Amino acid sequence: ITGGPLGRWQQTNRTASIPLGLRQVEQGGSVPNLRLAAGEGKGGFRGYRFQDSDLYKQLEAVAWEHARQPDPGYEAFLTASAELLARAQRPDGYLNSHYQLVKPDLIYAELEYSHEMYCAGHLLQAAVAAARAGAAPLLPAVARRLADHLVAVFLDGGDDGLDGHPEVETALVELYRLTGEGSYLALARKLIDNRGRGLIRDVGLGPLYAQDHLPVREADTAVGHAVRQLYLEAGIVDVYLETGDRSLLDCSVRRWEDLVATKTYLTGGHGSRHDGEAFGERYELPPDRAYNESCAAIASLHWNWRLLLATGDGRYADLFERTLYNAFAAATSTDGLRFFYVNPLQRRADYSADRYDGRRREWFDCACCPPNIMRTVASLGHYLATRDEDCLYLHQYAPGTIRSSDVELAVATDYPWDGRVGISVARAPATWRLALRIPAWSRTTTVLVDGTPVPVTPDERGYLVLSNPREHVELRLDLAPRLVFPHPRIDAVRGCAAVERGPLVYCFEQADQSADVDELALIPGTELRVVGMQDLPGVGRTVLIEADARAIHQPSGGLPYGDHPPPASTAVTATAVPYFQWDNRDGGAMRVWLPHPFEGIR
Amino acid sequence: ITGGPLGRWQQTNRTASIPLGLRQVEQGGSVPNLRLAAGEGKGGFRGYRFQDSDLYKQLEAVAWEHARQPDPGYEAFLTASAELLARAQRPDGYLNSHYQLVKPDLIYAELEYSHEMYCAGHLLQAAVAAARAGAAPLLPAVARRLADHLVAVFLDGGDDGLDGHPEVETALVELYRLTGEGSYLALARKLIDNRGRGLIRDVGLGPLYAQDHLPVREADTAVGHAVRQLYLEAGIVDVYLETGDRSLLDCSVRRWEDLVATKTYLTGGHGSRHDGEAFGERYELPPDRAYNESCAAIASLHWNWRLLLATGDGRYADLFERTLYNAFAAATSTDGLRFFYVNPLQRRADYSADRYDGRRREWFDCACCPPNIMRTVASLGHYLATRDEDCLYLHQYAPGTIRSSDVELAVATDYPWDGRVGISVARAPATWRLALRIPAWSRTTTVLVDGTPVPVTPDERGYLVLSNPREHVELRLDLAPRLVFPHPRIDAVRGCAAVERGPLVYCFEQADQSADVDELALIPGTELRVVGMQDLPGVGRTVLIEADARAIHQPSGGLPYGDHPPPASTAVTATAVPYFQWDNRDGGAMRVWLPHPFEGIR
Repeated sequence: ITGGPLGRWQQTNRTASIPLGLRQVEQGGSVPNLRLAAGEGKGGFRGYRFQDSDLYKQLEAVAWEHARQPDPGYEAFLTASAELLARAQRPDGYLNSHYQLVKPDLIYAELEYSHEMYCAGHLLQAAVAAARAGAAPLLPAVARRLADHLVAVFLDGGDDGLDGHPEVETALVELYRLTGEGSYLALARKLIDNRGRGLIRDVGLGPLYAQDHLPVREADTAVGHAVRQLYLEAGIVDVYLETGDRSLLDCSVRRWEDLVATKTYLTGGHGSRHDGEAFGERYELPPDRAYNESCAAIASLHWNWRLLLATGDGRYADLFERTLYNAFAAATSTDGLRFFYVNPLQRRADYSADRYDGRRREWFDCACCPPNIMRTVASLGHYLATRDEDCLYLHQYAPGTIRSSDVELAVATDYPWDGRVGISVARAPATWRLALRIPAWSRTTTVLVDGTPVPVTPDERGYLVLSNPREHVELRLDLAPRLVFPHPRIDAVRGCAAVERGPLVYCFEQADQSADVDELALIPGTELRVVGMQDLPGVGRTVLIEADARAIHQPSGGLPYGDHPPPASTAVTATAVPYFQWDNRDGGAMRVWLPHPFEGIR
Repeated sequence: ITGGPLGRWQQTNRTASIPLGLRQVEQGGSVPNLRLAAGEGKGGFRGYRFQDSDLYKQLEAVAWEHARQPDPGYEAFLTASAELLARAQRPDGYLNSHYQLVKPDLIYAELEYSHEMYCAGHLLQAAVAAARAGAAPLLPAVARRLADHLVAVFLDGGDDGLDGHPEVETALVELYRLTGEGSYLALARKLIDNRGRGLIRDVGLGPLYAQDHLPVREADTAVGHAVRQLYLEAGIVDVYLETGDRSLLDCSVRRWEDLVATKTYLTGGHGSRHDGEAFGERYELPPDRAYNESCAAIASLHWNWRLLLATGDGRYADLFERTLYNAFAAATSTDGLRFFYVNPLQRRADYSADRYDGRRREWFDCACCPPNIMRTVASLGHYLATRDEDCLYLHQYAPGTIRSSDVELAVATDYPWDGRVGISVARAPATWRLALRIPAWSRTTTVLVDGTPVPVTPDERGYLVLSNPREHVELRLDLAPRLVFPHPRIDAVRGCAAVERGPLVYCFEQADQSADVDELALIPGTELRVVGMQDLPGVGRTVLIEADARAIHQPSGGLPYGDHPPPASTAVTATAVPYFQWDNRDGGAMRVWLPHPFEGIR
């Protein structure tokens, strides 16, 4: 990736976010805690039970970044951290600074909230990243000892414990892929098979919270803590991918279809409730109180990527793209130094200084999101393309080079600001195919192969498959802005419309309006006008969209129910900015959904 | 009160709810805890820090019920409880079983969440009720010793501590009214004056949670935990009433006006968020995730009653009535044996078995609501009428007798099922006035005095004042059902309408529909047809309302955003039942607000 938003995010990740994260693993306690566990340093354990995981995610971010663009400082950090972890690790392989320091008698005894396997999983994933980056060979060794300890206790030892927070399942499968050690896969499978059987002690949040209400093959809908459900799904598909157990894929696809149709925000975000950081009921999708935890967007990327690998179906790449450019990207400020934990689709002018909502923050007491974002941004290059026997699939469009064994493509594009994607064939065998994902939102798509237009008839999985393109393919996606409407069952945004362009969801920020954003209503069927590319202070490079609207002045006072007089209103232009770029200026109101009345307003 | 819904609630309270509550104060631990504090019995403390308050509210309920209709069993319970409390009380007057048993070293040291003054306040209120009922004279003595201890520590002793949960303020004023002891009023005033000055340690919920963000005279809007804000307001008005400090009344009225216009549900309920049991932002009023804690409705009754006493303004009696018949009444099942903690305005068919929502329950681990309901129902007779020099004000209409020193009225009515209220003057001086509240919802009101129609021109406070009615007054309120619409700023119910009749908000329960209640949409401007009085199994005596609607069949599948095909729909009759009677049949879906599109549906 050499440019575009993805390239810029990677650059900012390297120059701003990762340095911040490296300071925070010291300040937040993760590294000092592990020093204490290694018998070094003074003081007491600091932070949450899962504080180790902040470091592990940071290690993974640094490892992927090192793989992307090597840096001796990164290598030194990875090596020093691996050595620290090796010193902190118990001789039997167990490693968790909180339990070693604070609760040595309760190791694996309170898995419902201990996050021990969750932390272990993040270490395993960091180790896989380090191995792929060719750095810190001690890290995979530490990870294997810890994984072997998990296997000894929970597979060979017969302990049927399950971590309240799924995460280790995918990590075990990844470590299996790296090492070929079948017991890791077997343990991942056992953990998934055993979920939903009441093996997790209820600590007052109910069995839905941790997806322990039904075996995974029986559950029909996503419930409880959103990140937990989504990490679990990724693990389920991972185990399917390595075992071929079709019942796992089937149940996960069934829940995906339900989730997409009834519990997914326009931005791709997941989790309708602050209470329990949870999924809501079907069609419960409030824009203002959307939780949409940044980590849930990441977990959704993991799941959709694996479903794409498992099925080749472009609908997973479509949702991946929607989530990437909206729910995920909005979590980070343009400068890479502030983060959202919660990603609502509406902020009112009088939002209160609550625990989560409001403005992005530099860091959080519970800092699961920022390093999770960093490891994802650093590894974005993994998600662009796949290859099967003779076909190279382009799933996401970004400028750069796509290399496979015998195919090399140069992609030139200003996507998603511009719909044209130029693909130059630098190297290819005599017989091959190129599959281009045609996003479902592109209404009129044009493709030229070596200068000649070809019919754009995507296959049933949403891909246009080209045989033996020789020199150049040009894809022209339709970036005409679109008014989109919610399904009538989504109560919270009834009578509203939103604006999209390409993969980007737009929003209306107070900073761009001449009227109170909470008083705006779109003129039915308004024209949507693209304002040319500009560099907006704070926001960065962007494309704005203008719509015709009315500012409605409805008097208030007394109970707000009854017969309201026809409101006065004035004609205004409403200006929309990409959602992922919001909250980079002031703390004003923001709305993705604007009222779009059916009847004229005086 | 001799009949009507209020009379029935009082009867059910006596025969079903109070007996249940009396069992629960034993089973839940309140009485056993106090026995332990008295050095009697065995075992450990059970329940929450504020477990004592369950007993205190139960004592208050029993005392009011004993005043209403004496019963030797009630008297024995009050006396035995007072004796137990006297034995449990420390020699210095302190009394709180949790802190005496579990945390004797932390008495008054963690007031931010200890609920010690909250519990004390409920004891004081129980004692006032017992005194007014002429029962258990030991109870006021125990309460005075505890109040004196509070005064010694927090007024004379100079301790500036504040309870995280307001409640004691009103109780101290009530005890001052009973005893004339000025230090109780002085302490209440100090607690109110000191709030919002950062004297409450933040335990991670932020200063808004316990209204410690701004001094009460400076705060403009209700924030944080709803019950806390509303109890605080009642205390503020109580202190105004006894001190004449107008700045207290002014700030409370300012917040009332803001609250009513922007943070009040159609049912009168308060608290838009499960997270923090809190008020939301202005116009944040989701019907499905409405918290509307039953205790918040009770606290609102307290506040509005005091504002009515302070100002004579009928708008407070109007909101009192709305809250009484809807937010408050819905908390209890028809049989008086099950309670809602949370009172949403919508339940979807697939609501999950969450911590709070769903069906009414017999009891709760945190059982603040049921005994709070019982004490309120038992004392409903207090809220019907007031008297000043020569005028008797009728605020609420219920069949029964209204007695003042030299006035006695017999009220005959089937209100709110029927709009006719007959008032017979049994006794009255030669010169007097009768003021009838004309509810703001009554569009066409007729009044006959001694058989002669009189012009119905309410004064600026919403009362029709009649001079010297001699024999009979007949008030005919307009019970024509009404379609009501939300203010356009209420995002969550945009494009919807609700049905009201008299003071009753209606709702659409699945049990009464021929189509999926979540697919119903009202025909714009539909006729509303009153179905005559009936006795509906489970629900009891009720009046249903029918409306013309369409059942909309919109296909689902894939992301629920975009251009939806015009939905097919079928004509149906939608049938509404009073909201306070919902959830007395099955656990099906319910909606107060139904879509009311502006455009025709195919």
